[in-house]
Amino acid sequence: MGMNQTPASERVHISFFGKRNAGKSSVINAVTGQDLAIVSSVRGTTTDPVYKTMELLPLGPVMIIDTPGIDDEGELGALRVRKSYQVLNKTDIAILVVDSTTGKGEEELALIHRFHKKGIPYLVVYNKIDLLSGEEIKDLAMSVRPGEVLVSAADGMNIQELKEKIATLKPEDTHKYPLLQDLIEPLDLVILVVPIDKAAPKGRLILPQQQTIRDILERGALSLVVRDTELKSTLDHFLTQGVCPKLVVTDSQVFARVSKDVPENITLTSFSILFSRYKGELETQLEGVATLSSIQDDDRILIAEGCTHHRQCGDIGTCKIPNWIRNYTGKKPVFEFTSGTEFPDDVSSYKMVVHCGGCMLNEREMKYRIACCHDQGVPITNYGLLIAQVTGILKRSLGPFPEMQKLV
Amino acid sequence: MGMNQTPASERVHISFFGKRNAGKSSVINAVTGQDLAIVSSVRGTTTDPVYKTMELLPLGPVMIIDTPGIDDEGELGALRVRKSYQVLNKTDIAILVVDSTTGKGEEELALIHRFHKKGIPYLVVYNKIDLLSGEEIKDLAMSVRPGEVLVSAADGMNIQELKEKIATLKPEDTHKYPLLQDLIEPLDLVILVVPIDKAAPKGRLILPQQQTIRDILERGALSLVVRDTELKSTLDHFLTQGVCPKLVVTDSQVFARVSKDVPENITLTSFSILFSRYKGELETQLEGVATLSSIQDDDRILIAEGCTHHRQCGDIGTCKIPNWIRNYTGKKPVFEFTSGTEFPDDVSSYKMVVHCGGCMLNEREMKYRIACCHDQGVPITNYGLLIAQVTGILKRSLGPFPEMQKLV
Repeated sequence: MGMNQTPASERVHISFFGKRNAGKSSVINAVTGQDLAIVSSVRGTTTDPVYKTMELLPLGPVMIIDTPGIDDEGELGALRVRKSYQVLNKTDIAILVVDSTTGKGEEELALIHRFHKKGIPYLVVYNKIDLLSGEEIKDLAMSVRPGEVLVSAADGMNIQELKEKIATLKPEDTHKYPLLQDLIEPLDLVILVVPIDKAAPKGRLILPQQQTIRDILERGALSLVVRDTELKSTLDHFLTQGVCPKLVVTDSQVFARVSKDVPENITLTSFSILFSRYKGELETQLEGVATLSSIQDDDRILIAEGCTHHRQCGDIGTCKIPNWIRNYTGKKPVFEFTSGTEFPDDVSSYKMVVHCGGCMLNEREMKYRIACCHDQGVPITNYGLLIAQVTGILKRSLGPFPEMQKLV
Repeated sequence: MGMNQTPASERVHISFFGKRNAGKSSVINAVTGQDLAIVSSVRGTTTDPVYKTMELLPLGPVMIIDTPGIDDEGELGALRVRKSYQVLNKTDIAILVVDSTTGKGEEELALIHRFHKKGIPYLVVYNKIDLLSGEEIKDLAMSVRPGEVLVSAADGMNIQELKEKIATLKPEDTHKYPLLQDLIEPLDLVILVVPIDKAAPKGRLILPQQQTIRDILERGALSLVVRDTELKSTLDHFLTQGVCPKLVVTDSQVFARVSKDVPENITLTSFSILFSRYKGELETQLEGVATLSSIQDDDRILIAEGCTHHRQCGDIGTCKIPNWIRNYTGKKPVFEFTSGTEFPDDVSSYKMVVHCGGCMLNEREMKYRIACCHDQGVPITNYGLLIAQVTGILKRSLGPFPEMQKLV
């Protein structure tokens, strides 16, 4: 069975940058012990960023990203360079590979400047030292600074040292809050309400549902997974038999119905709210959703999704959310939409941003988007909180978090 | 939330082949409406097979595979050509892109021969007809055969027609059996036993677990997900309260313990057995596991995994299974191991093959591996059945399938 399935969003993203032919791909292959990409001595073999998930000890599950050369030329080359720079927004650790026979040039210095600006921990790797004379290696070794490593991918020299240095740059686990382990005890029963509609992925569960079941398992508690359409019968049966759930967690889209079916004395919340808290975003997004009350005609609202998927009629982002907002506010704002990696750097023209849960984005990218909004004074909220607000059950669904309930 | 998450193994795999610069990537971009790869007029831009999951109407969720040119030259080129040919083993629909200004050459004919040999449905796409004169287009159109399409990726000509033709090649749903929908009724309770160990993927559930929960939801029934360590307390509590599960499904690795904890009157099976039946492999794999009784010293046994993951001490494939086999048979066979796409074409030197559940392989590739063994008279079984056999509970775990129980 597939065991190498840590979600991309939970992996440390390690990106390798450098000029064409500095030996990025060779260094990656040496570090990972795998043939990630075809390596050739032809300049510019990597034409698109290449993503590969793997276990890299002692770091654990990582996403390795090989990027096109930062010195690529021509129209096509410029496109490739832009793709390399875009990778920065999701990079947890940057590795800049420099050809030690030529040294750092202005492209490398420009990139290091960006690492600093974005606060990305990085290493500079001088590759190809096998091509230097003993004297040259000595000179280079004398001049290296902390965060600089001399290696030869060709003969494996210092690769182990490089791996250990990379591991020291591992970002701290930034989760201030657990997902829901603090809300339950071993053997507690948690009911998870999972509607099945045409947008649900065929043959599987979406990530937040999986992560929640996993978190409950790790607490030694029990998950009962049920559709919204069977929730009432199930609850009636279980409660009659004296089996009472400690908590009900629902998909936000069926919030209104579920809220009716779950007796008031049973705590109810949503996957969205649990994940907002887990990521430390709940307070910001509660402030964001409050903006709904001041929406006016022609205000611009950006609806952003982290993943690209085929847009169907009735799609939550492009149809349901705009309708909910129009009905709730009684106004006619203007909606714009982005998906995937398209999120604009400049959001200043928007009255508010409504983002999906971001389960397919890594934490750095989601934090970057929230920071973009924050820096430009634009409120941001997410789908789940917005739905809770417009269906009138935001307060109830914050039941597990009384200090947050006070903010509503 | 991420909705585009159909597992790769459940997607129709559509592979695009052709000479360098025949315009494979352009045709893909035209068909998918997305920039899958950077397209350039430089020969050989695609250096490694590129995989991309997407929704392609009217087909639904697909995996699009862009392959390196089949006419690439030199040592590096030959490596790329080999990578293209390897893609055939997982291809459900092949699209051969031909430059209509040059026509088919021997590389194309060789590839078509392979399509026939492997029984892969395919289309030949004559691209770049915008570069032909009216007369040339007319001549070409007169000579095309069924399964050949004239298009221009550059100006979108006949792309819609191509998409419709691709859709007609969609493989039949080959599942003779449901996963477990025929074993349960709406509102039935199914207990799923999911151990959490260091090999379990961080923060999520493995695919067979997800697919099982999903299948139960679609039947309107209930999944109770519990660790092996809490199973006994949970069952005691539920049974005391008069709530009785219809079925218990367990991970094979904790079979022995679970079998003790589940009262004999409750039906017990494993994820492995459900998936073997679903894929139509159960009978073959039951025959395969029977080979264990005739293993002798020095017999060679191949242990094959579908995914590559970091090997840890105690790893099921490399440690646990060999130990179980040695203990069960009292013999000292020789073990060999493969993972990922390395499965050998020639398995004739092995006494038996033990394969993982193959949840990360698409159905065509898994069937190909089973066919390899079958053609060469080598028994094949899977991890789950082997564990059930060596722990002595194979018969019990076939309880839901009495006709299979007779074979043991």
